Parts: sequence; structure tokens; C-alpha cells
Amino acid sequence: MTTSDTQRQVEETLTDEVLASFDGTENPRLKEIMRSLTTHLHEFVREVRLTEEEWSYGIDFLTKVGHITDENRQEFVLLSDTLGVSMQTIAVNNEAYEDATEATVFGPFFVEDAPKIENGGDMAFGAKGQPAWIEGTVTDAEGNPVPNARIEVWECDEDGLYDVQYDDGRRASRAHLFSDGNGNYSFWGLTPVPYPIPDDGPVGQMLNAVGRSPLRAAHLHFMVSAENLRTLVTHIFVQGDPQIEKGDSVFGVKESLIKEFEQQAPGTPTPNGREIDGSWAKCRFDIVLAPETA
Amino acid sequence: MTTSDTQRQVEETLTDEVLASFDGTENPRLKEIMRSLTTHLHEFVREVRLTEEEWSYGIDFLTKVGHITDENRQEFVLLSDTLGVSMQTIAVNNEAYEDATEATVFGPFFVEDAPKIENGGDMAFGAKGQPAWIEGTVTDAEGNPVPNARIEVWECDEDGLYDVQYDDGRRASRAHLFSDGNGNYSFWGLTPVPYPIPDDGPVGQMLNAVGRSPLRAAHLHFMVSAENLRTLVTHIFVQGDPQIEKGDSVFGVKESLIKEFEQQAPGTPTPNGREIDGSWAKCRFDIVLAPETA
Repeated sequence: MTTSDTQRQVEETLTDEVLASFDGTENPRLKEIMRSLTTHLHEFVREVRLTEEEWSYGIDFLTKVGHITDENRQEFVLLSDTLGVSMQTIAVNNEAYEDATEATVFGPFFVEDAPKIENGGDMAFGAKGQPAWIEGTVTDAEGNPVPNARIEVWECDEDGLYDVQYDDGRRASRAHLFSDGNGNYSFWGLTPVPYPIPDDGPVGQMLNAVGRSPLRAAHLHFMVSAENLRTLVTHIFVQGDPQIEKGDSVFGVKESLIKEFEQQAPGTPTPNGREIDGSWAKCRFDIVLAPETA
Repeated sequence: MTTSDTQRQVEETLTDEVLASFDGTENPRLKEIMRSLTTHLHEFVREVRLTEEEWSYGIDFLTKVGHITDENRQEFVLLSDTLGVSMQTIAVNNEAYEDATEATVFGPFFVEDAPKIENGGDMAFGAKGQPAWIEGTVTDAEGNPVPNARIEVWECDEDGLYDVQYDDGRRASRAHLFSDGNGNYSFWGLTPVPYPIPDDGPVGQMLNAVGRSPLRAAHLHFMVSAENLRTLVTHIFVQGDPQIEKGDSVFGVKESLIKEFEQQAPGTPTPNGREIDGSWAKCRFDIVLAPETA
């Protein structure tokens, strides 16, 4: 079916009319956002020739997303995540800067006031999983070491659950530490494992309908901040995790963030003399922070 | 701020990755819709350089829209209406066909099984307002009269409320009738008045923030169906209604649907001898139905 000139004109005139309705918006940024959003929503409807039945389905879908959302569950964030909209927002707010470490999604499981540990300390606090020694240096984009950078780290346990997902109030597998005078840091964490995002709601149904897995690639969260430098929110991913190839459900993976977790046989001496019964892993993650104004 | 080539590549690669995640979708139509929706959402984020704070605001806004929606109130429909998305959907599903009468929004106030009236009958059933005599002929696009077309009509009363908005179960200001053997129809209704869409929720806040009125231009709803012809859902609007110039809150107005409601002084004889105390109005609305397959 081709669209006639008359029809095209009807559709374009309508979009223009809606755009003009924002002419009286006092806040110029709001006006810009509403105009762009309207333009793209209209283009979407016109491009796919959305049927009235499909429109109704969309209204019902959004209603379900709204109704399952409460203070403990944010299905709109899941929807944004699984359509890559969250990650695209991260991308535009963390512009590529020389070889600064790339950012990725923040996720819903960060907690303020996680315990402080020293370099070489253990952030697991009893959470189950394979111990992993993580170390690296924080530098600026010119290669100067950044001492006293605040490093927040958090991850799930080997069952794929964060502490806050248990209802016993535990605090585990999260901490903060500071880089030393030479910009170096190190800590014991857990080798990350893949886990599913909540998939028993409308977003899970969407993933199922398009043949996608709800699994996130295994990862360990970092948030690194230091004076006059851009705060970095990122993850490291595990080289060889099959979920990287299959696809991270929220599109957080960046090639540069995939790190080797070198497997160490049981009995291998640890970097700081910690005694471990079984195997452990070792990973290096050097962090480069962009200037605050970049 | 200009976006560097590297940055542009990061953003485009991300969109491509999300689009590729729909490759396994079995339903080709769903795949087409998800790809187009994703493309436009990403373009919106990139175009306005959406900040993380604005993203959060958007998530909160949608959450409020979801939470105010229940079986009696559909705020997502209001949002779609006020962004012109509903009207654009109507437009693409009712392509312009020669001089067939244009379609407009269906609205939330249609009710099945409205009472049947004869030609010349009164659809007000006691609803308050200025009586208006509406008449016209239903034809196909070749100008042939269409006998026995089913004509559903509904509108608000002079207080701007539809019968279903009262909680006393009344049925008024709605009916259905059939065109006669020559395609002619006529009935008594009310001269339409402007009324606001529900504006005490997040959509009302949005309209306020962009300086728009929640008022709809005065209108009378029609749905006309006949064998082998495309069902027409439309309104007629009142020539001279100042809200037409100021803007209909859901963008339903089409130039071709604005009709003169000729004012008749008290005492002017009516077309079918009905006795009316005060003034009344007269309006002609000829209806042209497109072929079903157009």
C-alpha cells in the first residue's frame, strides 16, 4: 500500500498542529523535549501504520506496567532497560573521552552507606560465591594516578541475588574503599554470575514474545568518584561468560569492560595471604576517569 | 556541544545492538513494531541529549499515569490523545479517499445498545441544552445514496457531561437511527458545548506546564456503518466555537467537519412541527462513506 500525497499531507499537518500546541511552553527545555517526543511518536505510528487494535494493545500493556509498579518494583525502569533506552541515556550523558573507562547502567540495587573496607579487604561479608581478588589503578586521562578516589562496589551472590532482595535485612556483597596514595586499589569480591531481571510481569512477557532471555551477563558494579573528575558508573564483565555472546538483557556490556577472571587452583597463595579452601579468581581493572567538564 | 565521531559510533552501535535483539521474534509484525519503536525512542534520547535526571522524571511521570489509571479512568489514553498520537492512529487507519467524510477520535464515552430513534426523533432524552435539528444524506464516494446506514450519535449535555459521567445510571443524549430509502436522516440533538478532559492528574499537569487548555472544541459524535462501506467514526464541530481557534485538546478538529449550527429565533417553526419554547439551531451534515477496501 502506498500513501497518497493527500494522505501524507493530512498526517504531516496533524503532527505540525501538535508541535505548534507547545509554542506557549515557558520552559524552553520542556518545549524541546515535548516537540522531539511528539515528532518521534508520530513518526513511529506513521512508519508502522499502527492499527487501532495495536494501539489498544499498547495502552493495555502500559496500564499493566503501571499497575505492577510499586515502591519495591519499577517495571517502567525494566521496560526502559530492556529497550536499551536506559543504556542510551547513559551513553549520551557519559560522552566518550579519549581512553576514559566506559560507563554502563546503574541498576536498581545500589545502596547508600555500604560499609567501608580497607584495600585488600573483603566486600563479600559472608555472601556465597567464588572469592575473586580485584585490583587496579585509578588514573586521570593524562595517566596521572588519582589518590583517594572513592570506589563503591556491589554485586549479587552465587544465587544471583543482591542482599536487598532477601527479606532478612542482610548487608553483604557491597562496600566502599579508597584508592591509596599511588591510585592503587584492591579488594576481595566474588566472581560474578548471570542472573535474570524480574520476568514475571509485562516486560517478561514482552521478552518472551520476542524470544529474548531475561538474563543479565555476569557483572560487578563500580561507582568511582574523585575531585574534579567525572563520576564513573560502570560494571566489569567476565570474559568467557556465555551470556555476553547471547546478549545482556539490558545492553550494558561494552567490549572494553570485559575482564579476565583468571582461575586459580585450590591452594594457590593469595596476594595478601588470605587462606582460601577452594579455587579463587584474580582480575585486574584499571580505571581511567574523564575530566569533570568533558 | 558537538558530538564526536567516536561518541556517535557508540550511540549508533548501541541502537543496532538493541535492534538485533529482536531478530529472533517469530511474529514479523511484532518485530517490525519493536524495531521502529526502539529506533524512535533512541533517536529521541540522542536528539535532546536526555539527562539522567530528565529520564528519572519521565519514569516518575509514567508511574503516576499508571497509578491514576483504573477501570473508570484511562490516563494513558488521555496522554495519547493530548500528544495527538490517538488522532495520528485514526489518520493512518482512515486514509483519505476522494471526498469521503474525514474521521476523528472515537473518545471514551461511546456506549453499546443506545436506544433506537426514528428519523426526526429526539436523541436528547431529557438532557439539558439548546435543541438542534441535524439532517443530511448518506452517500457513497460515487454519490449514490446509502439507504439503511446505521448512524450512532452521542454528545455531552450543556454542563459538558456525558450521561455515563453521572452516577445515577441515566441514559441520555445518545441514540442510533437508520438512513431512509433515499439515504436521508434527521434527528433532534443538542447544540454542542466545549468541555474539559479530566485534568486533575499527571496529564493535566503536563498540559498546564506547556500552557495548554484541557478544553475540547464543542462536538457531536457520529459512527456510521453500512454494508461494503468503511465504517466512519467522526464528530461535527460548531462553526464559530472559539475553542476551535484556541485548539482542541486532543486535535480532533478537521476543517471539513466544522458545520454551521444556524441559530433560529424563539417561535421559528421547526422542520417536523415540534414545539420549542426558546431558540433552536439547525445543522446540515452530509456524510460520504469510502469503500470498505479503500
